[in-house]
Amino acid sequence: MSAAFLAALADALGPDAVTPGDAVPERHLADWSGLPPVRPLALLRPRSTEAVSAALRLCSQHRVPVVPQGGLTGLAGAAMPVEGAVALSLERMNAIESVDAATRTLTAQAGATIQAVQEAATDAGLRFGVDFGARGSAQVGGALATNAGGNGVLQFGMMREQLLGLEAVLPDGRVLPMLRPMQKNNTGYDLKQFFVGAEGTLGVVTRALFRLHPAPRARATLLAALPDYDAALALLGRLQSRFAGGVAAFELMWRDFVVASMAWQQLREPFDTAHPLIALVDLDGGSEAALQAELEEALAEAMDAGLVVDAALAQSQAQAAAFWKIREATAELPANMQPPVNFDVSLPMAQIGRFVDECRAALQARWPGHTSVFFGHIGDSNLHLSIDGATIGGHDEAAEALVYGLVGRFAGSVSAEHGIGLHKKPYLGASRTPDELDAMRAIKAALDPLGLMNPGKVF
Amino acid sequence: MSAAFLAALADALGPDAVTPGDAVPERHLADWSGLPPVRPLALLRPRSTEAVSAALRLCSQHRVPVVPQGGLTGLAGAAMPVEGAVALSLERMNAIESVDAATRTLTAQAGATIQAVQEAATDAGLRFGVDFGARGSAQVGGALATNAGGNGVLQFGMMREQLLGLEAVLPDGRVLPMLRPMQKNNTGYDLKQFFVGAEGTLGVVTRALFRLHPAPRARATLLAALPDYDAALALLGRLQSRFAGGVAAFELMWRDFVVASMAWQQLREPFDTAHPLIALVDLDGGSEAALQAELEEALAEAMDAGLVVDAALAQSQAQAAAFWKIREATAELPANMQPPVNFDVSLPMAQIGRFVDECRAALQARWPGHTSVFFGHIGDSNLHLSIDGATIGGHDEAAEALVYGLVGRFAGSVSAEHGIGLHKKPYLGASRTPDELDAMRAIKAALDPLGLMNPGKVF
Repeated sequence: MSAAFLAALADALGPDAVTPGDAVPERHLADWSGLPPVRPLALLRPRSTEAVSAALRLCSQHRVPVVPQGGLTGLAGAAMPVEGAVALSLERMNAIESVDAATRTLTAQAGATIQAVQEAATDAGLRFGVDFGARGSAQVGGALATNAGGNGVLQFGMMREQLLGLEAVLPDGRVLPMLRPMQKNNTGYDLKQFFVGAEGTLGVVTRALFRLHPAPRARATLLAALPDYDAALALLGRLQSRFAGGVAAFELMWRDFVVASMAWQQLREPFDTAHPLIALVDLDGGSEAALQAELEEALAEAMDAGLVVDAALAQSQAQAAAFWKIREATAELPANMQPPVNFDVSLPMAQIGRFVDECRAALQARWPGHTSVFFGHIGDSNLHLSIDGATIGGHDEAAEALVYGLVGRFAGSVSAEHGIGLHKKPYLGASRTPDELDAMRAIKAALDPLGLMNPGKVF
Repeated sequence: MSAAFLAALADALGPDAVTPGDAVPERHLADWSGLPPVRPLALLRPRSTEAVSAALRLCSQHRVPVVPQGGLTGLAGAAMPVEGAVALSLERMNAIESVDAATRTLTAQAGATIQAVQEAATDAGLRFGVDFGARGSAQVGGALATNAGGNGVLQFGMMREQLLGLEAVLPDGRVLPMLRPMQKNNTGYDLKQFFVGAEGTLGVVTRALFRLHPAPRARATLLAALPDYDAALALLGRLQSRFAGGVAAFELMWRDFVVASMAWQQLREPFDTAHPLIALVDLDGGSEAALQAELEEALAEAMDAGLVVDAALAQSQAQAAAFWKIREATAELPANMQPPVNFDVSLPMAQIGRFVDECRAALQARWPGHTSVFFGHIGDSNLHLSIDGATIGGHDEAAEALVYGLVGRFAGSVSAEHGIGLHKKPYLGASRTPDELDAMRAIKAALDPLGLMNPGKVF
């Protein structure tokens, strides 16, 4: 059966688009989840939507499951191959098909990297709204399938909010060409929303039509030392009121994170004194001078109100980069924790400070002397936490149970931006009720009645 | 059967929450679609989510269809009663349950009016992102079910974009309590998206958790005479680049609309000369003085570039209101056209000018001397058109076929913001492919297997 199936695929897609399992390159056997490699039945690399459609139709006819793969940078395992399933890589569909500066739209194939989209937008004098560390490898299709977030969410939202149109292929091969470039289009269910964040379980994204944003004209970067979490929340509120739409980043770092960042990167303390919290803020505005003046005034008011204890305003791009260097210690996590046990959770914004205190205390009670670092995009309700696995005796699962249990009690989400994939399946119930999961399964069964799309993921 | 069913409902909801068909007040027999009144089997007015759940469970057990009703201001007929179905009004669930100024969120029951939400936001020093003419009657649930748009879309998006969380009741009575206030929450399918724009065909919205926006600190209003459509598009682009996030409205009025508005409201021409297009622009910014100065500079540049022929900057709120008066001629349509045949379409932004020319020419060829007016929120790709029914000999359906046919040829949408309801069902195929409609029907069958929710609407 398998030989006949592969022959039919080679016939439909061209022989160079079908790689049998034993010849599949290593890099397609795993993603960044850290899960052990799995060899798929075959790797398909179609060049067009029509070829994706033909591949899915054949898989459907032969009852062979399909795992869509993008840049393989996902941390939750949604793109991990499955034994007996084909892996469907979109990497050859990597064109930026069009950029329209007048109407600020861009059409990309699913295999284009986020960086390629960003560069095409920049070349047109515009800006793409989403940015995150894996930009050079992560692809449009995967970023949509996981509704990726990252650094620009405060200003422009996640991948979902960039989307004007989508082309997707259903598991049986039917193509949904939902690429009309209108923001307002209320004609029945907005089907494109269904594929965003579905982690490839409902179909395959083949093309996306994005809205673009104006390029920033001026930027200011601020490092602010804060007395406590409520002050952080109040400062964010004041800045968002004063610089409406202009707050591009508000990254909060707890003292444990700052200490680790200094040590790992051999940096100097940014302030004379150790402060419990440091906020790193990017602001966009009309002109450097006006922005700087307005920010200085806002800062003086915030200091008067006791919200900011000390602050530094970047006087150059180099200084702004130095401020950001503190936050970018996350790239050093793998080299400095054995291994890092990473969390990506979201919580009601008002509760994040209390959650951090309780979570740290609970970890400390269970593993005295453990090492953990807390940081996050709090304006998006998103908190990250990394624990040094060596300092909890390798009890990763116990730590996960502890943290996700607390997230559940705070009515938070076990996945802010990384998705569920394989890794977080056991904890989905902390964020979703049984009836919500039933409704999801009903939709899955409706669009994928044979259960062939990315089996075992999410549910 | 019917008596037993109504008795069971009265038992579950309380007798005053169940009105038998013959006693149902007139205003629940029709919405603003202009369709003739229909008397439902009964009118239910539950006071809580639990009561909505009980009502849907009973309807499901007795196989009685349900038509959810909000403020009944919809123009497409989605809330029109159906014979043999109960009408389920959310009007008694009208509480604004909480406003959190620190995290900028608001929780409202589905029966709260849009105006009540706006006022609660304003009282907290904030702003709700959606506004439209029917604000005083339209309710949260209906506005979400139709993904309403209106005046603020350019800046803040439609109802979908305001939504952080949603509570909905499935047709079988199960409650999905998706009210966690996190922007980032990628835990399986984002089910709340499914109920937005579904026009009550998948379940009943009972509660919504909205994000709020900072209140504007300063506003400028501009009336600009433009030489042609491409100039309008270019002006919008320039303003959005310069006032990032600050362009709150960009309403375009073609000459026919301006002429009608002057005549109906006995206004003076805003400029010395008749211009083919007038744009009405609202801008938000940090301070009146800075905004005015920046706008004057932008305007001078646009005039140099030939994008603006003449312009007036409002020097007072009264003058801004006078500018807006021209646009608000839409309220005068029913009194001045016999009757108005209204269209709410969207088109690729770059094509709107050409569409207007071709559409007007086609109407003119078919009905020489006819009266029509064109206007729209072009930054949202949304065009409105009203034709005086008397001047096309009452051939409304022929006019609809003509306009929607042209919309289809321009790859536009037959419903930008009003929805499909009953009225636009015949034209849905102009904007959606058969496979897209099949996928919608599969989802409908998955969540509403008995087909009881708002039967006959949308599909």
